[in-house]
This record gives sequence, C-alpha cells and structure tokens, in this order.
Amino acid sequence: MVAKPEKKFKIGIDLGGTNIKVGIINQQNQLLGHISTPTGVGRPYQKIIADMSKAISQLLQELKISISDCQSLGIGSPGIIDSKTGVILYSNNLYWDNVPVAKELQQFFDLPIHVSNDANCAALGEVLAGSAKGCTNAILLTLGTGIGGGVIVDGKIFEGGFAGATEIGHMVLSVDGVPCTCGRRGCFETYASATALIRETKEAANNHPESIILNLCNDDIDAIDGITPFAAAQQGDPAAMQVVENYIKYLSEGIVNLVNIFRPEKIIVSGGVCNQGDNLLAPVNQYVKRFCYAGEKGFIPPVVKASLGNHAGMIGAASLE
Amino acid sequence: MVAKPEKKFKIGIDLGGTNIKVGIINQQNQLLGHISTPTGVGRPYQKIIADMSKAISQLLQELKISISDCQSLGIGSPGIIDSKTGVILYSNNLYWDNVPVAKELQQFFDLPIHVSNDANCAALGEVLAGSAKGCTNAILLTLGTGIGGGVIVDGKIFEGGFAGATEIGHMVLSVDGVPCTCGRRGCFETYASATALIRETKEAANNHPESIILNLCNDDIDAIDGITPFAAAQQGDPAAMQVVENYIKYLSEGIVNLVNIFRPEKIIVSGGVCNQGDNLLAPVNQYVKRFCYAGEKGFIPPVVKASLGNHAGMIGAASLE
Repeated sequence: MVAKPEKKFKIGIDLGGTNIKVGIINQQNQLLGHISTPTGVGRPYQKIIADMSKAISQLLQELKISISDCQSLGIGSPGIIDSKTGVILYSNNLYWDNVPVAKELQQFFDLPIHVSNDANCAALGEVLAGSAKGCTNAILLTLGTGIGGGVIVDGKIFEGGFAGATEIGHMVLSVDGVPCTCGRRGCFETYASATALIRETKEAANNHPESIILNLCNDDIDAIDGITPFAAAQQGDPAAMQVVENYIKYLSEGIVNLVNIFRPEKIIVSGGVCNQGDNLLAPVNQYVKRFCYAGEKGFIPPVVKASLGNHAGMIGAASLE
Repeated sequence: MVAKPEKKFKIGIDLGGTNIKVGIINQQNQLLGHISTPTGVGRPYQKIIADMSKAISQLLQELKISISDCQSLGIGSPGIIDSKTGVILYSNNLYWDNVPVAKELQQFFDLPIHVSNDANCAALGEVLAGSAKGCTNAILLTLGTGIGGGVIVDGKIFEGGFAGATEIGHMVLSVDGVPCTCGRRGCFETYASATALIRETKEAANNHPESIILNLCNDDIDAIDGITPFAAAQQGDPAAMQVVENYIKYLSEGIVNLVNIFRPEKIIVSGGVCNQGDNLLAPVNQYVKRFCYAGEKGFIPPVVKASLGNHAGMIGAASLE
C-alpha cells in the first residue's frame, strides 16, 4: 500500500486596505515566496476576491508549486471576522459588510479556506516562526493607526465566544479620556497607537515653542512621525521626553492589564515605533515588572519586538486551521 | 461482563477567609447537602486542611454517601492558584504562601483533587447550574470587597498561560486614578467593588450635608452599606443619584472592556449590590449595549444576576477537572 503523499504547502493572504499580500509557506513555516497586488478598495468585493485568486495563481506559477500540493488557504483581514463561517462581518478599512470571503474564494480553489482577523494572524505567525517561537500562550499588539490585538492560547488563536473578541485597542484605560473612533473615550489605542504618539508630539510642539521637535522636522509639523519624539528626547528636549514618558506609561498600563487577564508567556509588540528598540522596550519591561498583579510571586512575561515584520500576517494566515 | 459502576458524586470545597464550606453534588450538578466550619486563619495550614477533611467525612456520613462513590474533589480558594500543581501560590485572605493544598488533602482521600481560584469556581457553578446554564462562554464578576473574575471558555475555566490570570479586578480603568491594594492606581475594583460604592457614598454624605444619605443610617456614617445609595437615590437625593450613576458607569465600562476582549455569551454579576436587580442591571445593560465595539454588528451579551448565591463556589469546585 502506498501512502497518499502529504501536502507540503500552505497559502496565506494578508488582506489590507492598500495591498493584498499573498505568501506560500512550507511545513517548517518558512515563507517560500510572496507577491503583492493593490486591493483597490471601493470596488465590488467579487473583483477584489478575483484579484486574490489571480495573485495566488501567479505565485504558484513563479514558485513552480502545484495547487494540488497545497493543504489549505488562509486569509487575515482587518475588521470583525466570523472565523466559524469565514465571513467578514464588518471592516472599516475595506468598506465591507457581511462579505462571505471564504465561500467566494472557494469558487477558485478546492481547498479548506480559513479566515481570521489580521492581528490574530500576525500573532500566530510570530508564535510559529517569529519572536515568540515555541510559546503556547502569547499576545501580539500592533501599534499602528490603531492598536490591533492577537491572543494565542494553547498554541491557537483565541477567537472568544463570538466575533469581535480580542479588540484590545478598545479596552478603556482612562474613563472620560481621549475620544475614540469606536464611540467610547479613553481606549488603549487613543494613547498607545502610533497615531496617538504623533498627535501628542504635535501638541507638544505647539505648546512648547522652545522645544526642538519642530527643528527636527524642518519646521514642518506634518513631517512629525513616530521617530521624532524619541529623537528629540534623546537630545534632552524636555517636551519630547514628557511625550515619550507618557507614551511608555500608557502602553505599559495596557500591557499590565493584559498580563493580569491572560498571563501569557510573552507580549510581542510590532509597528514602526518598536524600531526604537530598548529606548522603548527597556522602560516598558521595567514598568510591567513593577506593576503586574502579585509582583514576583507570579510569572511576568517579557515584552519583545516582533521579528517577522510584514511577513507575520501571511505566515499566520497560511497556518490557520 | 459487568460494567464497573459509575461514581455518582463529587465533593466541592469553597475555602474562604472566614469559613470552609463543603458540598456534595450529583451528576445533575445538584447540591445534595453542605456543611460549614470556621477556617481559623492564622493556624498552620495542616490544621486547616485536616479540618477540611473532617468536614468532608461528616457530610458524607450525614448524606449516607460512601467515599468510594465519589469521583473527585475540588477546592476553590482565594488568591493566586497554580491549578496544574494544586498549589496555592499566594493568598492574602488566608495568609498562605506556596501551600500544596491538593497534595496535603490527598493524604486523607484517594481521589483526584483539583484546585482553582474561588471566582473561577463560582463562574463554573453558574454555567453548570445557575444563571448562565447552557452557556459555553461566560464571565462572572463578584462585586465584594474587591472584584473577583472567573472566565469560562468552551465550557471550561480559562486559567491563562500561568497562574495569576483573569485578575479582572486589577484591570486599570483610569490611569492615575484611585490607589489600589495591588500597587497600581485606577483598577476596576477601586470603582466598582462594594467597597468602592460604600467609600463613594460616605464621601458624598460628608460633602453634601443636605443629602438624606445619613438620615437613612440614623446619622451613623459607618452604617452606610451598598443598599444606602440606591435607597437614597430612589427618593430623589441628588448626591446619592450621582454616586449610583458613577458606580453604574464604571461597572459598565469594565464590562464593555471584557466584552471587547472575550465576547462571551453572558456576563454574570454577583454580590449584595446585585440585589438591586433592575435598578442596577437595566442601566448597566443599556450602557453595555451602547458602547461595545462594533455596536449591533457584533453580539452583545446580556448582563445578568448570579442565581446560585453562596452555592456557586461549591458546585463549581466540585466540577473541577
């Protein structure tokens, strides 16, 4: 009797508001190749999904991989996803409501198709092949326009009871605080996203004409980015130091909350601001160590930088089950 | 061949700072009987555990149940529990550090012995036999001296990656807010525990001499309890109405955070303040409905009152696996 040959490859799609990124991984979770095509949001979803299909076919051809050697296909998407049915219930970035993405893509490929939130996929990618490799419990925070959250429990994505769980960016840290797009005030992401950091840096530049913040941007306030406050703080600028200190405080408070709730092995942070490395991570780890419930009587997870960059989403999506 | 008779009963212990409560349940999760004995905190833990054993033996005798008909024994304890090893790592209420309660009790009974946090056990009890019966995902909040939290995921207690998870009372809702016993400021329990409600009511009484709060307590400020502000608010007392409104707001903000993180089927609240019924629950449900992430595009769990009272902990402890 000849055993049926094992399928060797998995396809992962990182669906974003700007680009559709498609990658193929092997059984060792290595990304063998990837390809990108514009999402073109605003078009009928059928057209966007047809473009996903074309990109997959093109990548398979480039890598000389047959679809019959592929085990499964996974999609990481922004928004609220019903992972049980493969439906994107709601995505702000894609302007989608109730799009049956798995069913639609199934027309093109006879493979098991799974869908999850993009931050969930990135978390799974980092656990399988990145900075939390080998961990069975970990949390990823993507510090970008907002804050995305992916939680891995017992080696799998924690999807919660219903779609719309692990919306960690929308955990309020400061009742009556900064207004959030979600309708509440004081959400984690209104203080610790890259957007929040830039907003606070601009405000500091406006309120402190003596600060060097604007000098670093050739007096163009719109050129302020997530690097600016750290660069100014390193030169001893008091206004920038205050912005950085406050950012670290709120990021850490959110992380301590997550430790007290999930007590994972690692917290992974991703996004441009994490390129600050120890300027950011050393004080965050110090803060977290100091304030987790029960202190050193409990396990205190290290906060580390994600290592897979833009590949995490594709690797994680490909690994959905 | 004769099948080995199935074991019909399970023993549950609710270990508290004041009393040890022991109960026995049948296969339908019904409490057949229970017994209580003083904990006598401060004594060597061996003595306290020997008293647990005595109470179990006495209850078995009263109910005419043989230990050989019992399947397992579970303990719900306050504090940080390592449920994998059955060790109470740290309990403030019991003055215990690293007490191997499962191993110690094993000397008396040749049964599988499991240990978990008391709020976890109460949550499991409510899911098996109480107000969340039939739910596979639910969260219980005990509103008492502090706030205890138990999270049920896929029908089981969510223990997190390491001991010290689901410490929901220590989720900060207000950075730089009210100081908490845990060393942080602005924890959920500093606003939404019974202790917090009483503190705020006393403060309102002091700051508003025109308020009827003190009249309701015969001018004895120490007689203020969790009922007082609701009673005064119902009579239209502005100071009390403000206290109640604020309490409802913070309780709801904490609950919305939990929905955005876990998206359970139900949120169960317990503790004396819940006897206010719809005076408390109607506005809380309204608030939660309004502010959960993605609004009505997502599932919004009802907030309900626990129904098992003091029995939840014993039933849940008996059901530990």
